[in-house]
Amino acid sequence: MLAERLVDFARQATPGGEAREMMRLSLFDWAACAIAGAGTEVAAILRAQALEEAGRGEASLIGGGRAPARMAAMVNGAISHALDYDDTHFAHIGHTSVAVVPAALALAERTGASGAALLDAAAIGAEAAVRLGLWLGRGHYQAGFHQTATAGAFGAVLAGARLLELDAGQGGHALGLAASRASGLKAVFGTMGKPLNAGIAAANGVEAALLAARGLSAHMAALDGAQGFGATHHGAGDLTALDGLGARWLIEANSHKFHACCHGLHAALEALGEALGDARGDAAGAVETVEVTAHPRWETVCNVAEPATGLEAKFSFRQVVALRLAGHDTAALDSFSDRLARDPALARMRARVRVGFDPALGETEARVGLQLAGGATRQAAYDLARPMAAQTRRARLRAKAEALLGAERAGALWQAVGSADIAPDIATFSRVLAG
Amino acid sequence: MLAERLVDFARQATPGGEAREMMRLSLFDWAACAIAGAGTEVAAILRAQALEEAGRGEASLIGGGRAPARMAAMVNGAISHALDYDDTHFAHIGHTSVAVVPAALALAERTGASGAALLDAAAIGAEAAVRLGLWLGRGHYQAGFHQTATAGAFGAVLAGARLLELDAGQGGHALGLAASRASGLKAVFGTMGKPLNAGIAAANGVEAALLAARGLSAHMAALDGAQGFGATHHGAGDLTALDGLGARWLIEANSHKFHACCHGLHAALEALGEALGDARGDAAGAVETVEVTAHPRWETVCNVAEPATGLEAKFSFRQVVALRLAGHDTAALDSFSDRLARDPALARMRARVRVGFDPALGETEARVGLQLAGGATRQAAYDLARPMAAQTRRARLRAKAEALLGAERAGALWQAVGSADIAPDIATFSRVLAG
Repeated sequence: MLAERLVDFARQATPGGEAREMMRLSLFDWAACAIAGAGTEVAAILRAQALEEAGRGEASLIGGGRAPARMAAMVNGAISHALDYDDTHFAHIGHTSVAVVPAALALAERTGASGAALLDAAAIGAEAAVRLGLWLGRGHYQAGFHQTATAGAFGAVLAGARLLELDAGQGGHALGLAASRASGLKAVFGTMGKPLNAGIAAANGVEAALLAARGLSAHMAALDGAQGFGATHHGAGDLTALDGLGARWLIEANSHKFHACCHGLHAALEALGEALGDARGDAAGAVETVEVTAHPRWETVCNVAEPATGLEAKFSFRQVVALRLAGHDTAALDSFSDRLARDPALARMRARVRVGFDPALGETEARVGLQLAGGATRQAAYDLARPMAAQTRRARLRAKAEALLGAERAGALWQAVGSADIAPDIATFSRVLAG
Repeated sequence: MLAERLVDFARQATPGGEAREMMRLSLFDWAACAIAGAGTEVAAILRAQALEEAGRGEASLIGGGRAPARMAAMVNGAISHALDYDDTHFAHIGHTSVAVVPAALALAERTGASGAALLDAAAIGAEAAVRLGLWLGRGHYQAGFHQTATAGAFGAVLAGARLLELDAGQGGHALGLAASRASGLKAVFGTMGKPLNAGIAAANGVEAALLAARGLSAHMAALDGAQGFGATHHGAGDLTALDGLGARWLIEANSHKFHACCHGLHAALEALGEALGDARGDAAGAVETVEVTAHPRWETVCNVAEPATGLEAKFSFRQVVALRLAGHDTAALDSFSDRLARDPALARMRARVRVGFDPALGETEARVGLQLAGGATRQAAYDLARPMAAQTRRARLRAKAEALLGAERAGALWQAVGSADIAPDIATFSRVLAG
């Protein structure tokens, strides 16, 4: 039975070194996105609600203050997803950390767990969310469910089960309770309801785990039984999703965003970077035309030809290429300002970019061709699914955090999450989150 | 658009005298069931969680103590559904008050609303829940959703929108937020997860309304749009469900439970009462055999022939008839004890009861035939859908409350909810709930 296997996994699994290191880096990136999101309107609303409700200060809020674990998980989940800059997993059609990490952090603070225990619980929760995302399948997402939130709630509750040391029975009850409340619709995309979905998933996981720890009962068949969550929510019920659970860690293929724009543009920006090579700004002056080719899915998603606002710029192949050629850091939020969207020099550069689509490419792939002054050409292709060396990932995540938070705070955060050999320091980590 | 009409309804409707009186009586009955449920295990668990989290004491908890509105709604929703003795609505395949009233009460206490405003908001929320239950249709329930909780969450959020005086935009956001988190599976029936579903619905309504009041946004199409709640949750989308909304109040046909057992047994108990007439206990000695006929649906639901426990007795035609003939009050919880289930005199009486099923009867109907000593016979039939005179309802609800709470507390509760002309007194009402 799926539910029993997941509960066993949550109780007994030990993430291997590579999975743990990926989770540690993801914790760092999650925090960087969260701190950068603390200035958003959705953050202000949720923080105000939490600070007004008050209560036992078990867990930290991003931006400062404390709240009961369930509320902290909701607030932090929503804030960390507010910029949509957090990590994703291509197998799972969803964001990996944003429901799981806030739940794990809040319960780690509540229970006084070690940084190593937090890391293990987060890795277990994230792995379970990815596996459940696969188990639910693409049809679940296509039907209208926000997989980040639905699969994420199960990851959150299993991370909670680990930290609260639930026994097998309690773990099953927790999973059943989560099954009866996991939710989240794509129909709220484009509103603050989207980041809130992630926060609700985290909060549901926390509350289900806490209530199960107190003895509240539910059937674990509510996940995968005849009229369980999967069956009622258009899930495929693909049990091969669990193959190798506990031995193989799919989160090792977790994917981080290195550009503050729509994910559909990232492969093109990476390919552009490779085509430019070390030349960077110097070569840009010599670029006469750029030809970008991507998967046709992105044509209706992020191909705004003449963006007039910063928001539109985040969905424009031509604008992000122009930004890169002009030497703007596409990892930085302020590269997507209204001012730069209307900048005449960038508009002129945009005019030299042509965008095409090729169904032979995968959704994670793009090709870029450069025509340089003097007649030389350069080509490069990139696949976001291509593994990234750990050293490269560390350097790029650090650079992203610096672009978001400045060098000092990014450095403090880097210290707080430790290293491959040193576990995160939860107290320091929370202090950096508080700001 | 459905959502716009519901928001308009929540903002502008005025329940008529009959609807308001039904809601007042339902408030009384809800409170009686809630106070009687305060001794259950699920109540103890939720109260402990709420009292530990603490926070701003905006609203009363059943059994004493205060909590933020969202938490109070969750705790009180679950406690009031713990005995499954609360009201139902046959159109809606769900319980009418248990998600809506806790939300309305918590927000009325938070805002300092009048008793009249509480009554209006509860009536509006309950009416909306019934209408949305009809809009979702039987297929939603059959697929596996716990309509009390799903439709109930929308009723709760609209009651909240009324009390928080949300404008049309905020009301739409609140409804959209509720659509992205309304939940509840029948797969947890038979566990504490069932009453918790009602509490979560109430809590979701409160939180969605509070966050929308602070400016959190969502699309109201998340309820009834292309990939909204209805479309994703096997809803029929039957817009005739809204016919006459605001003019005609379906809650006037609300149904209260007068026996502390499965609803499938109630029509038979009512028919038995009519067949016995005024004779009551005296006639019982003269009853030789009883023949009960009900709709075949109930054969697999509540036809335990030889119950061995109090729980089984709640699902036994033969036992409830025997209890009634022996003069036990089937409205009282302790009539369904393990001891009485095993009582030899009742077992002998049970042996004189025959149960049959007839597909020509409706699910709310039953027939009873009595064979009396000396050869006389009596017949009676009852349909739970038959309207009940207001005077009869008042007397029976009061008697039920006395059976549950004792005369003194039932009397105090009766005072607190006022009369047809006097609005409920929220402070007194909350004091009685606290106990």
